[in-house]
Amino acid sequence: MKVAVLMGSNSDLPKIQKCIDTLKSLEIETVVRVMSAHRTPELVADFTDHAIENGFGVIIAAAGGAAHLAGAVAAHTLLPVIGIPVEGGSFNGMDALLSTVQMPGGIPVATVGVGSGGATNAALLAAEILAIGEPALREKLAADRAKRREKVLAADAEIQG
Amino acid sequence: MKVAVLMGSNSDLPKIQKCIDTLKSLEIETVVRVMSAHRTPELVADFTDHAIENGFGVIIAAAGGAAHLAGAVAAHTLLPVIGIPVEGGSFNGMDALLSTVQMPGGIPVATVGVGSGGATNAALLAAEILAIGEPALREKLAADRAKRREKVLAADAEIQG
Amino acid sequence: MKVAVLMGSNSDLPKIQKCIDTLKSLEIETVVRVMSAHRTPELVADFTDHAIENGFGVIIAAAGGAAHLAGAVAAHTLLPVIGIPVEGGSFNGMDALLSTVQMPGGIPVATVGVGSGGATNAALLAAEILAIGEPALREKLAADRAKRREKVLAADAEIQG
Amino acid sequence: MKVAVLMGSNSDLPKIQKCIDTLKSLEIETVVRVMSAHRTPELVADFTDHAIENGFGVIIAAAGGAAHLAGAVAAHTLLPVIGIPVEGGSFNGMDALLSTVQMPGGIPVATVGVGSGGATNAALLAAEILAIGEPALREKLAADRAKRREKVLAADAEIQG
Amino acid sequence: MKVAVLMGSNSDLPKIQKCIDTLKSLEIETVVRVMSAHRTPELVADFTDHAIENGFGVIIAAAGGAAHLAGAVAAHTLLPVIGIPVEGGSFNGMDALLSTVQMPGGIPVATVGVGSGGATNAALLAAEILAIGEPALREKLAADRAKRREKVLAADAEIQG
Amino acid sequence: MKVAVLMGSNSDLPKIQKCIDTLKSLEIETVVRVMSAHRTPELVADFTDHAIENGFGVIIAAAGGAAHLAGAVAAHTLLPVIGIPVEGGSFNGMDALLSTVQMPGGIPVATVGVGSGGATNAALLAAEILAIGEPALREKLAADRAKRREKVLAADAEIQG
Amino acid sequence: MKVAVLMGSNSDLPKIQKCIDTLKSLEIETVVRVMSAHRTPELVADFTDHAIENGFGVIIAAAGGAAHLAGAVAAHTLLPVIGIPVEGGSFNGMDALLSTVQMPGGIPVATVGVGSGGATNAALLAAEILAIGEPALREKLAADRAKRREKVLAADAEIQG
Amino acid sequence: MKVAVLMGSNSDLPKIQKCIDTLKSLEIETVVRVMSAHRTPELVADFTDHAIENGFGVIIAAAGGAAHLAGAVAAHTLLPVIGIPVEGGSFNGMDALLSTVQMPGGIPVATVGVGSGGATNAALLAAEILAIGEPALREKLAADRAKRREKVLAADAEIQG
Repeated sequence: MKVAVLMGSNSDLPKIQKCIDTLKSLEIETVVRVMSAHRTPELVADFTDHAIENGFGVIIAAAGGAAHLAGAVAAHTLLPVIGIPVEGGSFNGMDALLSTVQMPGGIPVATVGVGSGGATNAALLAAEILAIGEPALREKLAADRAKRREKVLAADAEIQG
Repeated sequence: MKVAVLMGSNSDLPKIQKCIDTLKSLEIETVVRVMSAHRTPELVADFTDHAIENGFGVIIAAAGGAAHLAGAVAAHTLLPVIGIPVEGGSFNGMDALLSTVQMPGGIPVATVGVGSGGATNAALLAAEILAIGEPALREKLAADRAKRREKVLAADAEIQG
Repeated sequence: MKVAVLMGSNSDLPKIQKCIDTLKSLEIETVVRVMSAHRTPELVADFTDHAIENGFGVIIAAAGGAAHLAGAVAAHTLLPVIGIPVEGGSFNGMDALLSTVQMPGGIPVATVGVGSGGATNAALLAAEILAIGEPALREKLAADRAKRREKVLAADAEIQG
Repeated sequence: MKVAVLMGSNSDLPKIQKCIDTLKSLEIETVVRVMSAHRTPELVADFTDHAIENGFGVIIAAAGGAAHLAGAVAAHTLLPVIGIPVEGGSFNGMDALLSTVQMPGGIPVATVGVGSGGATNAALLAAEILAIGEPALREKLAADRAKRREKVLAADAEIQG
Repeated sequence: MKVAVLMGSNSDLPKIQKCIDTLKSLEIETVVRVMSAHRTPELVADFTDHAIENGFGVIIAAAGGAAHLAGAVAAHTLLPVIGIPVEGGSFNGMDALLSTVQMPGGIPVATVGVGSGGATNAALLAAEILAIGEPALREKLAADRAKRREKVLAADAEIQG
Repeated sequence: MKVAVLMGSNSDLPKIQKCIDTLKSLEIETVVRVMSAHRTPELVADFTDHAIENGFGVIIAAAGGAAHLAGAVAAHTLLPVIGIPVEGGSFNGMDALLSTVQMPGGIPVATVGVGSGGATNAALLAAEILAIGEPALREKLAADRAKRREKVLAADAEIQG
Repeated sequence: MKVAVLMGSNSDLPKIQKCIDTLKSLEIETVVRVMSAHRTPELVADFTDHAIENGFGVIIAAAGGAAHLAGAVAAHTLLPVIGIPVEGGSFNGMDALLSTVQMPGGIPVATVGVGSGGATNAALLAAEILAIGEPALREKLAADRAKRREKVLAADAEIQG
Repeated sequence: MKVAVLMGSNSDLPKIQKCIDTLKSLEIETVVRVMSAHRTPELVADFTDHAIENGFGVIIAAAGGAAHLAGAVAAHTLLPVIGIPVEGGSFNGMDALLSTVQMPGGIPVATVGVGSGGATNAALLAAEILAIGEPALREKLAADRAKRREKVLAADAEIQG
């Protein structure tokens, strides 16, 4: 199944590049789109309404400020929706975090952290979700995690050396 | 022209009663509706798309938490949209305030305060907007403001007495 | 009708330039003034007391820190007053936001976001308000919004390309 | 596949009852456990290490304050982990939210909101995840969402009535 | 010299009663007034413009929310102005604190804390200011402080007893 | 009477230079000292205990982080104490603000804003306090304020020009 | 060695009762005192200056608001000082937390959490410190921790039952 | 006894260098390790489980974001654990502070401040703890503190000069 990565503005691209890169490194088919909850609301609705039939398994939505994109997507689908609150702006992403995570009961958004860790984790979370039905993907995740573990061990060895 | 008062949930009604009461005291034709950006998004879009032709001059939208309603309305109309961030919840409305006010450039929401002052002010702001073309309404606003002034003067007289 | 753009200090000018530019791009007659709620209070009172008779339809007021300007203006007029909380300072505009939006019941200020989106939106909100009585202005707003929509679609096409 | 609901303390039970109830209403096999990242860390590690082989598809972890439980679980599994930041305490759950959502890159936690909406949404998110491979479950989710939509429509009808 | 205690609304009276009581206990001539920066701005300007000639030495101003009263007073006088940010409202007085303390350079407001300690301290600060020229008043302040010290010592003795 | 300007560390000097400069421009005799509530507590106590007899009328204390200096000074004197919460550090001075302003009832600290406006205002506030007994100083303050007013008017003329 | 528990006001006693109870349950000799950094500063200095010679091994200091007590104690001793930021007040203890934890380099305060967990943990931390040189005390700590673990296991058994 | 300094990532090293340097300047045997609560949890558990027998007296743990390291360490030992919330990230370390300090009752973490003062203070606090049983170490601490005092006095002399 494919993963969609939606962003509210192409100015968000550098902030979520790690998400796209991580999905690609896991060889997950990824579709990247720019669409805005406020400037192209019907496009968001249309894309999301057809996401299941178009073969998507997870939708990732990234936005900053009054970040409504993930919620707007979640309102139109029963797929798991992952929200990335984009850092930046006057409140450093606290507005994006609260706008993304404090969804009303009934319409969940799986929110990841503000900052580059969040972008990476959105991709890994999508992969963990898809891996429930794809053992080969879970193997790739295990390799990714092992690599992160090795990196810590290497840094530990170096600092002790 | 009419004013629409939308709320995301009927549980918000007590929090915005002062808004409705103030509009009525100013004899503004008011339509009160419950519709949710997340549970009935197409209803929000449909209502808003036809708001101008249906004789509305201003739309007031009240929501709490990840308060997307005012922004979702603003995305569908060129009418002035007033957002009431509903107080309550774990963060006492700070989430609603940031979700309502931090809109991206291009899609304005006129945000009023969190708390009962905000509900009253949403109505008065709507009236001030409509009063640009309705001198009689401005007279009513002048009377409202004079009354508030008198109340302060009376309290001052009492405390000095 | 004209729009007044007031700022508490000329150091705020770069922060609200987008507001002025947007008003001009919509061909709205705009008067830009520097006046301070604290350093020239009588000037604020005098300007605002005569704003209606001088042909103003909306007043926009921008200030940072303990941002009292929009509230001080609102205390002197029944015109719609739009407050821009200017970003910057130790608290990145959170002080300006709360000082502008948390007005007591009776004296509304239509608050827009902190940051450049807010400055743009103040202008668009003023235009939406005036457009209630000026169909030609609403056409210009529709064009502005269409342009913003096209920009998103173009970015989407590019990212998919 | 089963869903595990872990809580750091049985005092959290009332705060996450809606999560358990929602899972049951969707007829998802649910295992509820009390285990603490700090008081029974080896139990958390042991449970999580064997979660896949024991037939779990998703793990939900709820904790307040310095809420480490979801992160501790995520460190031990490649299953999707959903974190519920439990409201309450001096900071009303802001500490729990930040402790849950700001995970480092590599170890994702799907965070839902603070408050009762969050508990419900954790269950629905788990269901959406499992529904990728279980069409019957998606039907139940569609029914749940339709019911929520009907409730809004009914409230709307009542308020207009 | 007299001290003026201004409050934006008579609903603030219970929150600043300790201020008034403390001034009276120090036998300082105190004038208590209700006037609003937003509902009776010209009254605030008029009172303050004549405060020096009317024998006031210090003005204390208490307000909540977007608390502009102390700043509005300070804009009209060269007397020391003490601001009490009144607790309460959705943000527990954080809005009042920032609106009171973050004044622009040139127009100082001596801000005391949010809560009952702040109301007491506004009175004591006013007394300390007046005591520069009134040795007898400083004696009373010394007695007040000694009494507070004795109270701590008594509590210490009791807890050890 | 003299004014003392105390700072917790000489690294704070650039942050409070405007305070010192403003005092000098008003020809107030100013003594600048570095002393720390935590590293030289007995020096703070000793200086403050003798401040009145040494001819001081006001003490200004500037500190950042857990800013205890103004409170420590206030604990040892009945002179008015002005606290400058120094901006900077991880929390941009919010820690310094709360540590300075939230004093317990009985020991007032007159707190000014975080940022350069605060440093200037500490000096002006000290001058306003001393001016109660020194008409010539009040004249200088009137001139200072007039100059600030002229600057706004000049900026206004320029922007309109 | 003994532990001292200092509180700024006897009104803090209920908030730190768990600290005292925990110390007693560990059979640590405990001296409880009321002394205030601001109302009895010389008592704080005197007590702390002699704490080592009087047989104290750790000093615990609890205060709310602008909580200077722990820092004032730390300025006078080389003993480990534990700060309990007392919850309550308008900012729910955030002011106390920042005033306690953000100490300048050179004068450490070991800060525990705001809320009842913090009071308990102050006692346990003191015991862990003393236990470095007292194996019998560490045994008691091991028993305490085992009991907490058992409580979680019992709750887990109950919820599964 | 030795002190362990653990960090969640070697990218934290510059932020805690002052901690390591201070420990070395006090001639305390220091072991610096990189280990992650989330990427190498079993390493954290294993190291901590054997810390006492390996001759450690205090463990210092530094982490940023959802900073679980200190808590994870504390869950596995009865040694005093000092947590350094590492500054940086979107929320400037507020997330790290709350994740470190708001531990549940039973598992204490001695938290120091966010920023360079915190890193220094973690080392000094560890030394103060070990100094309870090592008079020679307390002498070194007394010298360190005297040096800090001298630095303030020198700065004071310079500024007066």
